[in-house]
Amino acid sequence: MAEAQTLMDKIVNLTKRRGFIFPSAELYGGYGGFWDWGPLGLKLKNNIKNAWWRDFVLAWQDVVGLDGSIITNPKVWEASGHVANFVDSLVECLACHRRFKADDIDAVCPVCGGKLSPARTFNTMFTTNVGPVLETANEAYLRPETAQSIFVNYDNVRQTMRLKLPFGIAQIGKAFRNEITPGNFIFRSREFEQMELEYFVLPETSDEYFSELVDRCYNWFIQLGIHPDHLRKYPYPSGELAHYSRATTDIQFAFPIEKGWSELMGVANRTDYDLRQHGKAAKGDEQAFATPVGDDSSKKVVPYVIEPSMGVDRAALAFLLDAYEEIEGGRTTTTESVKETEIVLRLNKNLAPYQAAVLPLSKKPQLVKTAEEITRTLRQHWSTDYDETSSIGKRYRRQDEIGTPFCITVDFDTFEGGKRPAGTVTVRDRDSMAQENIAIPELVDYLRAKLA
Amino acid sequence: MAEAQTLMDKIVNLTKRRGFIFPSAELYGGYGGFWDWGPLGLKLKNNIKNAWWRDFVLAWQDVVGLDGSIITNPKVWEASGHVANFVDSLVECLACHRRFKADDIDAVCPVCGGKLSPARTFNTMFTTNVGPVLETANEAYLRPETAQSIFVNYDNVRQTMRLKLPFGIAQIGKAFRNEITPGNFIFRSREFEQMELEYFVLPETSDEYFSELVDRCYNWFIQLGIHPDHLRKYPYPSGELAHYSRATTDIQFAFPIEKGWSELMGVANRTDYDLRQHGKAAKGDEQAFATPVGDDSSKKVVPYVIEPSMGVDRAALAFLLDAYEEIEGGRTTTTESVKETEIVLRLNKNLAPYQAAVLPLSKKPQLVKTAEEITRTLRQHWSTDYDETSSIGKRYRRQDEIGTPFCITVDFDTFEGGKRPAGTVTVRDRDSMAQENIAIPELVDYLRAKLA
Repeated sequence: MAEAQTLMDKIVNLTKRRGFIFPSAELYGGYGGFWDWGPLGLKLKNNIKNAWWRDFVLAWQDVVGLDGSIITNPKVWEASGHVANFVDSLVECLACHRRFKADDIDAVCPVCGGKLSPARTFNTMFTTNVGPVLETANEAYLRPETAQSIFVNYDNVRQTMRLKLPFGIAQIGKAFRNEITPGNFIFRSREFEQMELEYFVLPETSDEYFSELVDRCYNWFIQLGIHPDHLRKYPYPSGELAHYSRATTDIQFAFPIEKGWSELMGVANRTDYDLRQHGKAAKGDEQAFATPVGDDSSKKVVPYVIEPSMGVDRAALAFLLDAYEEIEGGRTTTTESVKETEIVLRLNKNLAPYQAAVLPLSKKPQLVKTAEEITRTLRQHWSTDYDETSSIGKRYRRQDEIGTPFCITVDFDTFEGGKRPAGTVTVRDRDSMAQENIAIPELVDYLRAKLA
Repeated sequence: MAEAQTLMDKIVNLTKRRGFIFPSAELYGGYGGFWDWGPLGLKLKNNIKNAWWRDFVLAWQDVVGLDGSIITNPKVWEASGHVANFVDSLVECLACHRRFKADDIDAVCPVCGGKLSPARTFNTMFTTNVGPVLETANEAYLRPETAQSIFVNYDNVRQTMRLKLPFGIAQIGKAFRNEITPGNFIFRSREFEQMELEYFVLPETSDEYFSELVDRCYNWFIQLGIHPDHLRKYPYPSGELAHYSRATTDIQFAFPIEKGWSELMGVANRTDYDLRQHGKAAKGDEQAFATPVGDDSSKKVVPYVIEPSMGVDRAALAFLLDAYEEIEGGRTTTTESVKETEIVLRLNKNLAPYQAAVLPLSKKPQLVKTAEEITRTLRQHWSTDYDETSSIGKRYRRQDEIGTPFCITVDFDTFEGGKRPAGTVTVRDRDSMAQENIAIPELVDYLRAKLA
């Protein structure tokens, strides 16, 4: 990674300049804590979500998906404890009336130096009103986490899908938190997307599954390219655990923010707390979700749940930060020579927005036609860019900046031969800058092997 | 389709019983206008979204994706006209104070018979407050459509992706409308998911693109299995057009609701209205988004936009309704005989939650082992269920009810031969109930051909 002090700014600039992430409605000055994902950011985000779904849902025989609504019956949030406990501590400047998160402030207002009020609590769930009457009875919340959608659907899903312990329910979806101080780009935003798995197990096996899931999550980031030096496990000391948690381990990433090492995602053993809470609130019975332990349906238990919880946006930020590299004075190969600083985004090849880009050396119709044909073929397999604008060097730079692992160049040798046999294209590797000559009919197999 | 009067109830029941769609937080009595999608509903919905993305984004060279935030700067909704005009007309019963959509009511309260107030307007955007202070200045909206995210990002996307007219920006995402009377299951809900394409064109070509997109949308539903008798185009008479629209055609479906034929989706020629509005509001210049017409950048025009806009939920409902069939007295083949009424969900094979189900005839280890091996192989290609519970007849019924096009049965003949050669399984077709004997190594190719 480049120097921590300015790396975040560089990522903000790069992702905006290249169509990954824009301030939400930037046209109107943006909106604090909200972001719009552009075409390339959407591709990156979808690739992350698909990788997670593949590895934490489809790869398991016993995990199914769910898509709960963002707004739901507010009783859910009373039972879960969010109405009472999902709070931040807030102080107000007695002079200028600005409000600040109490944790962030020492003694006086950081803006005007005024005296501060005592801290008071503030619920960070967004509220809205459902139905045409504005009254407390109609107040509802935007979910601050996807997990509760899973808990309240536990029995519906278990029964309709005929699941037996252990089994999991997974969800990807938007969540909202009215953060007092959103910041550090998409590290802490007010609207974000979560990927959560609730894996329900027999209580006596929960420690084992917890350890396994911590390892799986850690390894998932390593396999997708995060440098091991930038990733660590942080097991919470028992004094710091939430009251419902038997154990929590964060996977931390060395974010280039003031705090440094910070939560990338968390894995928690939430015990049977949530199912008991909902059993009590909805059915007056903490045991309402007791579930048969095996084929003998007479023995039942309220399962424990292991929860790996991850923000898609924060994961995307970690991948972007870790992939970013500047090369002072540029890089040189036999066919390229760049003098200024060059940016290479060394994203995992399958997370990158495009797996390949096809570049005709010039706009000559012969080259364009063949390049377009190759593009159509590759698009049946991978996300493939096509670019005929500007010089070949500039186009390579652009593809390096957006992380495209392979650039395929169609030039005159493709037709007439010369330095290479006719019928070949060059395939340039983003990381090594090595160029290989590949016969056009072999291109798909070549890339398939490289992208496996 | 079955009889209109009760078909909707049957779909509500089937989709709940089989894990497609549950009332949101049903545990707490549900929540009017909100729904949770279960494992099979999520698969159906994802298949619809993927089909749309494939056919309206990836298949076009010049369409890119976007993922804007649900909450954004409220100035967007002032400029778009939603703050002023996104209203419903509401009447209140002077006796019981219940409120109703004025359109739905004749003269007296339908609940208590009381006199009604004069109609007044009510904005159907959900509001919330962003930041720790509850005050009007912090009021924001949950987007009632995804389209505006696209318009406000027009220049950011065009420039970063180096797009030239004509080009499109597409988005799939949640939208929210505080409907006074949500109802008819997921036909009209308060939280729903939209798929919108904004295709920007030269004004003089807009009529042509409009017609093309209407046809493409109509054909998309036909190709995915909607019966032509249940689908029609409804071009709005000029007197009924929204003020910004040059032309709008709804694709209507024969929904089994009181109104009958109703909007399944709409295609609108929105002209240059939105880009002019945002140009004026954000930059004081209606021409701010004038865009080069060709390589000669001196000639510029504010493009017109053609918008196909579709709700994923409503599309899913249409597919479910049209696929539903009851067979009185059941169906008979050489190996099955069912007497009671049987349900078959004749979903398009690739929209169905599972493309295949693998069923060992019994729980004998030999059968289970082979069935599990086949399941693992098929899951590399398609969504594949595995079911070893209950009788084979009951399992076929279940797969018919959830629309699985192919059931693969592993029985003793698979090992010992008998009526069939050893090494084969039977593949049962959901629609014809025909059973074919297929050698296990040929299964993937067989299904690939059937699912193409």
